[in-house]
Amino acid sequence: MFGGFIPKEGRFFELFKNQSKLITEAAGEFRALLAHLDEVEKRVRNIKDIEHKGDEIIHATMDLLHKTFITPLDREDIRELSSKLDDVLDFIDAAAQRVLLYEIKQMPNEGRELAEVCVQAVQKVETAVGYLDNLKDPNAIKKICVEINRLENEADYILRAAVAKLFRDENDIKNLIKFKEVYEILETVTDRCEDVANIIDGIVLEYA
Amino acid sequence: MFGGFIPKEGRFFELFKNQSKLITEAAGEFRALLAHLDEVEKRVRNIKDIEHKGDEIIHATMDLLHKTFITPLDREDIRELSSKLDDVLDFIDAAAQRVLLYEIKQMPNEGRELAEVCVQAVQKVETAVGYLDNLKDPNAIKKICVEINRLENEADYILRAAVAKLFRDENDIKNLIKFKEVYEILETVTDRCEDVANIIDGIVLEYA
Amino acid sequence: MFGGFIPKEGRFFELFKNQSKLITEAAGEFRALLAHLDEVEKRVRNIKDIEHKGDEIIHATMDLLHKTFITPLDREDIRELSSKLDDVLDFIDAAAQRVLLYEIKQMPNEGRELAEVCVQAVQKVETAVGYLDNLKDPNAIKKICVEINRLENEADYILRAAVAKLFRDENDIKNLIKFKEVYEILETVTDRCEDVANIIDGIVLEYA
Repeated sequence: MFGGFIPKEGRFFELFKNQSKLITEAAGEFRALLAHLDEVEKRVRNIKDIEHKGDEIIHATMDLLHKTFITPLDREDIRELSSKLDDVLDFIDAAAQRVLLYEIKQMPNEGRELAEVCVQAVQKVETAVGYLDNLKDPNAIKKICVEINRLENEADYILRAAVAKLFRDENDIKNLIKFKEVYEILETVTDRCEDVANIIDGIVLEYA
Repeated sequence: MFGGFIPKEGRFFELFKNQSKLITEAAGEFRALLAHLDEVEKRVRNIKDIEHKGDEIIHATMDLLHKTFITPLDREDIRELSSKLDDVLDFIDAAAQRVLLYEIKQMPNEGRELAEVCVQAVQKVETAVGYLDNLKDPNAIKKICVEINRLENEADYILRAAVAKLFRDENDIKNLIKFKEVYEILETVTDRCEDVANIIDGIVLEYA
Repeated sequence: MFGGFIPKEGRFFELFKNQSKLITEAAGEFRALLAHLDEVEKRVRNIKDIEHKGDEIIHATMDLLHKTFITPLDREDIRELSSKLDDVLDFIDAAAQRVLLYEIKQMPNEGRELAEVCVQAVQKVETAVGYLDNLKDPNAIKKICVEINRLENEADYILRAAVAKLFRDENDIKNLIKFKEVYEILETVTDRCEDVANIIDGIVLEYA
C-alpha cells in the first residue's frame, strides 16, 4: 500500500560500494603506472575509463535521491559522501593525466611511496563504506576512520619531505615543478579520503 | 492582507540575471584583453569595476534573503547559486590581475582559446539563469547544463595540452610559471560555471 | 526536570573563544619566526603544538554538538564556524612548515608584511568571536567583520605586488617558487578569516 514510500536503502549503499570499489581499482592502476612507467597511455586510459564509470554512478545516486522520498541517511550526507568519493577518483585521474601529458619518464621514489599510501587509504575507505548499511559495530568503523586520518598525516609528511628534497637536489626546474604537482595531487587524494572518513564518522555518531 | 508573506520571487531572479550579465561582460572584456594585450591597465580596471558591481549584487541578494520569509527557491540554493556566480566573476578578475601584475606582453594562443571557452561557458550560464523564473521547459535548461559541462571538459583538455606544451617548449621558466597560472585560473572559471550548472540542474529536478 | 534539554550555550562559545585564542597565538609565533628566522625548528614545533591543541578543540566541539539537543546557534553554523577557524590555524601551520622544510634562510620584506596582516586579521577574528555570546551590539560586530574584509583585501594587494616583484627581480627560480608559495598560503589565512567573518555576519543577521 505504501510501496512508493519504502526506503530504497539497499540501492544507495550498493551505489556507494560500487563507487569505492572503482576508486580502489583506479588507485591500484595508478600505483602500477608509477611502478613501471611503461604502457603509460594504456594505463592512463584505463584510469580515465574508471573515472567515467564513477561519473555514471554519481549521476545514478543523484537520480535515485531525487526519486526517493525517505532516504536511509540524511539527504545532505548522501550528496556529500557521493561527491567526496567522486573527488577521490577525480584526483587519481588528475595525477595519471599529469604523468602522461608531462611526459614523465622517471619518478623519484617519494612518488611511489605516495601512490602506495593512496592505495592503502582508498582500501580503508572501501572497508568503511562497506560498513555503512550495518552500523551495529560503530567502534569498528571509527577505528577505520582513525586509520584513514593516520594515512593522511603520513602522506602529508612524505609530501613535505619530498618537496624539500626536490628543492635541495632537483636542478631541472621543469622536473621540480612536474614532480611537485604530482606529489601534491596525490596528497590531495588522501585529503579527500579524510573528508570521506569525516562524513562517515558523522553518520556513525548520528545513527549508531 | 498577507502582503508581508508574498514571495519576492521576481527580485531574486532579477538579481541572478544581473549577476550573470556582469559575468558575461567581464569575460568579454577579458577576451579582448588577451586578444590585443594593449590598454591592459584600462581593461583590467574595467574588469575590477565589474567585479565590484558583482559584490554589491551578492550583498543585495543576501540582504533580500534575510528579509524574505518565503523564498521562490530553497534558501540554500539561493545562497549557493549567488556565491558560485560570484566565484566565476572573481576568477575572471584574478586572471586579469595576473596579466597586469606579471607584466605579460605576449600570450600563447592556448590562453586565447581558453578565454574563448570561458566566454562561451558564461554565456550559457546567463541563458540558464534566465530560465530560472520559468521552469516550464526543463529539457531546454538541462540541455544548456550539458553544454556547460562539455565546455568545462573542453577547457580541461586545452589546459592539459597547453601545460604539456609549456613544459616541452617554454624555456623561460618565469614565463612558464606565469602562463601556467593564467591557464589554470581560466580553467577554474569553467569549473565554477559547471558548479553553477549543477546547482541549476538540481533546482530543475526539484521544482520542474 | 528538563535538565537534559538545557542549552549548553556557554560551552560552545567557550570552545570558539579558546580556538580563536590559539589562532592568535600561532599567528604571533609565525610573525616572530619570519622576523628573526632563528630558532626555526623550535618555533615551528610550537606552532605545530598549538595546531594539535586546536584539533582537540574541534573534536570537543563536534562531540558537544552531537550530545546537545538544543544548540545556541544553528547546528550548521557551529560546524562551519569551527571548521573555518580550524582552517585558519592549519594554514598558519602550513606556512610555518614551509619555512622549515624549504630551509628558508632569508625572506623578502613582503613576507613579513603579510604575516603582520595575518596577525591583525586573527586578532579581529578573536574579537568578533568574543561577541558571539552577546549579540546586543550587532553594529560593533559588523564593524569588525568589515575590518576583516579590509585586511583580506590588503593581504591580496600585498600578495599580488609581491609576486609581481618576484617575477621581476628574483632570478633564483627555486626561491621564487618557495616565496610565492609562502605568500599565497599567508594570503589564504586572511581568506579563511574572511570566511569566518561572513559566517559571523550571517549569525548576527539571523539572531540579533
